Amino acid sequence: MELFTVVGLAAGFCTTLAFLPQAIKTWTSKSAKDISLGMYMIFCTGVVLWLIYGIMIEDLPIILTNAVTLMLALSILYFKLTFKE
Amino acid sequence: MELFTVVGLAAGFCTTLAFLPQAIKTWTSKSAKDISLGMYMIFCTGVVLWLIYGIMIEDLPIILTNAVTLMLALSILYFKLTFKE
Repeated sequence: MELFTVVGLAAGFCTTLAFLPQAIKTWTSKSAKDISLGMYMIFCTGVVLWLIYGIMIEDLPIILTNAVTLMLALSILYFKLTFKE
Repeated sequence: MELFTVVGLAAGFCTTLAFLPQAIKTWTSKSAKDISLGMYMIFCTGVVLWLIYGIMIEDLPIILTNAVTLMLALSILYFKLTFKE
């Protein structure tokens, strides 16, 4: 495997995995006051577009990483809409 | 321009722009209690790796979008470290 492929995979792993501690923190604290609703609305829209892009160009890594990111980001968006301050 | 290129550009635009409302909200509220430190540490690491990946494969869109995302995500990380609860 080429070095740039390893760097790209590590990059995708980090930017996907990053949303897990936020999802866990928001779920356990039941507080989402400081979370921006606008951020997660725009971000989830973007990740859906990345998924569509991955399907259009038939790129499995783009499809898989964005499917996981979407589940995590949607859960944070749901918590934001659910937990009252 | 092909349709998939438009979808990809729109996707990158959204997932980059999304961090702006969070940065503005955190800056104006001076509160980052509900923001996950782990998320922004892992996320910034991932975006740096995306930047290195973009430079390695000489892909200008990857370099530019991740440069903007890094500035926004780093500012949120800085606010998280600066603003006491």
